[in-house]
Amino acid sequence: MNRKINPRVTLVESLAIQFARDYLRSEGFMEMFPSNIVRASGACENINTLFEVGSNGRLDWFLDENGNGRQVYLAQTKQLYLEAYVPYFEKTYCMGSSFRAEAAVDDRHLTEFGLLEIEFEGGFEQLLQYIEGTLRAMVFGFSKLNRKMLEATKMPKRICELLFQQGECYPRITYDEAIECLIKLGCDIKWGDDISSDFEKVLVREVGNRPLFITHYPDPQWPRKKENEVEKFFNMLPDKKGNVLSADLILPFGGEAVGAAARVHKPDELVSRLTKSKMFKNLVEQSGSIDDFSWYIENIQEKSVAHAGCGFGIARIMQWILGEEKIGDAVSFAPNRASVI
Amino acid sequence: MNRKINPRVTLVESLAIQFARDYLRSEGFMEMFPSNIVRASGACENINTLFEVGSNGRLDWFLDENGNGRQVYLAQTKQLYLEAYVPYFEKTYCMGSSFRAEAAVDDRHLTEFGLLEIEFEGGFEQLLQYIEGTLRAMVFGFSKLNRKMLEATKMPKRICELLFQQGECYPRITYDEAIECLIKLGCDIKWGDDISSDFEKVLVREVGNRPLFITHYPDPQWPRKKENEVEKFFNMLPDKKGNVLSADLILPFGGEAVGAAARVHKPDELVSRLTKSKMFKNLVEQSGSIDDFSWYIENIQEKSVAHAGCGFGIARIMQWILGEEKIGDAVSFAPNRASVI
Repeated sequence: MNRKINPRVTLVESLAIQFARDYLRSEGFMEMFPSNIVRASGACENINTLFEVGSNGRLDWFLDENGNGRQVYLAQTKQLYLEAYVPYFEKTYCMGSSFRAEAAVDDRHLTEFGLLEIEFEGGFEQLLQYIEGTLRAMVFGFSKLNRKMLEATKMPKRICELLFQQGECYPRITYDEAIECLIKLGCDIKWGDDISSDFEKVLVREVGNRPLFITHYPDPQWPRKKENEVEKFFNMLPDKKGNVLSADLILPFGGEAVGAAARVHKPDELVSRLTKSKMFKNLVEQSGSIDDFSWYIENIQEKSVAHAGCGFGIARIMQWILGEEKIGDAVSFAPNRASVI
Repeated sequence: MNRKINPRVTLVESLAIQFARDYLRSEGFMEMFPSNIVRASGACENINTLFEVGSNGRLDWFLDENGNGRQVYLAQTKQLYLEAYVPYFEKTYCMGSSFRAEAAVDDRHLTEFGLLEIEFEGGFEQLLQYIEGTLRAMVFGFSKLNRKMLEATKMPKRICELLFQQGECYPRITYDEAIECLIKLGCDIKWGDDISSDFEKVLVREVGNRPLFITHYPDPQWPRKKENEVEKFFNMLPDKKGNVLSADLILPFGGEAVGAAARVHKPDELVSRLTKSKMFKNLVEQSGSIDDFSWYIENIQEKSVAHAGCGFGIARIMQWILGEEKIGDAVSFAPNRASVI
């Protein structure tokens, strides 16, 4: 990362997040403060990139119920912790960091980045509208700044471009349509493949360099003959047609910036999908177990409602707002494996 | 910690922090998002309670400039990172977690707790006023809720008590006066000792169970004959009379909840005080060096102004607001060594 302070980037970042907060508050979302040190229930699909937390050179400093050493991690997402609170508060959010042990030292990967997460009582369509609303607020807020302040951001022109590009709603295509479109364009991809960041760029260009939702990814637990390599979080809600009610928002410059889904909320179905997931198999291989999810399962069993949510990757949204190709130029603090300060 | 969700505590916590944010914003403070994974420059006085960050079982996964393994930590404070931004933004704040490898499993210690930190261009008197203003906002906000909302917090009576206890300004005593007072009351303490949490309670009782500032702790680097065991952060500003311009705010129920000081901002003096500090000696013994502070020193050398700041320990403030003796009953997430979820 750049070691020199760039006040302009910091100003834009601070304002954009303030605009997002104001929007969420006006919509009735309540801010929460889940912990960062967690068990494996703080993992995304990929538990292999969880950081471990140590003390005095030991990675089993924390204790389990029997007083034996326990391995704990830094949260990649606070999704499950927010979910447990939805039955009590309807609309929740948190703003913090996502931690990833990404080995790559390049212009795309960070070991820690800002993540704004929401979870609320409601369904998939409402979810997409909250995502559009949040992003719109993050851009539109700048257009309401006084001239002096807007000039301090050095982006009056960029904001006009964004407002024009963005419109009220974003184009949506399903995963199946996205694959079909890429094949037609001659890209080397087949159904069941993950859509790489290069192919995401192709799709964004196809819709005129606007934010683009890719929805309805194939359900990894649906029985089918075709091979499906797409790995999705265990509690994404199946649509009973072989897909999950999920959406990735792809942005110009930033790429995949928001991951979203309606969630399974019935305890039995949740536990069943968890234990059948690839993530869970990896966890068990690394001597974890269902017990890592016990707090979450206990609370969902206590009370649960149909809900949905998403995580906004702030650094990628900032790339889009600032029009920056390099992630390290888009936020104040952009640590990777070789640049902790 | 309690594994069961307590919606009332979560509601009060969320509102109190929202009131603090609103106050800081109205005073012109800008929110920042410093990293949590840091070098030793994220430590408080006591580097021995820094958590280490590992990946794949290794605690030297991160890399230095030469590609060799580097030990990194979880931030206990983001003070130095905010400080570097003060010359550009005048008033800064951040809201996040402080991580401490506290071995005790009891009703007082947490391994992670909410910390709201401010740093601004200005001096000691202004600092105490911002602290009073922030705490006042956190209490006064409740009195402005509509009746239904206030009743949901289940504390109309408690808020009246707090408003009455708190007043406009808090009593202030210096460290020397505090020791004198405790000796007069027959407590077993002498000048140069740290003031324990039990003695803090005695002092708070003496001022009628109100928030109390203890100011002007002895400067550990001032040459004197009496022995001084009080350890204070290296960049607290000396008053040239043997004390530092520091203040601890002691609250009923919570105890020491805010640590505050005017800061040294002249680069040479900073480096000199850093390298003479006890913390630095510990760091060197653990094979750290001045290089851990290089980002901070580089930026302070680039630009610096007279400034001050503090950290608000949210869990302890919540104990005060809720009137809770046990820290685990005062916040939604209260992890310790034996209760990570």
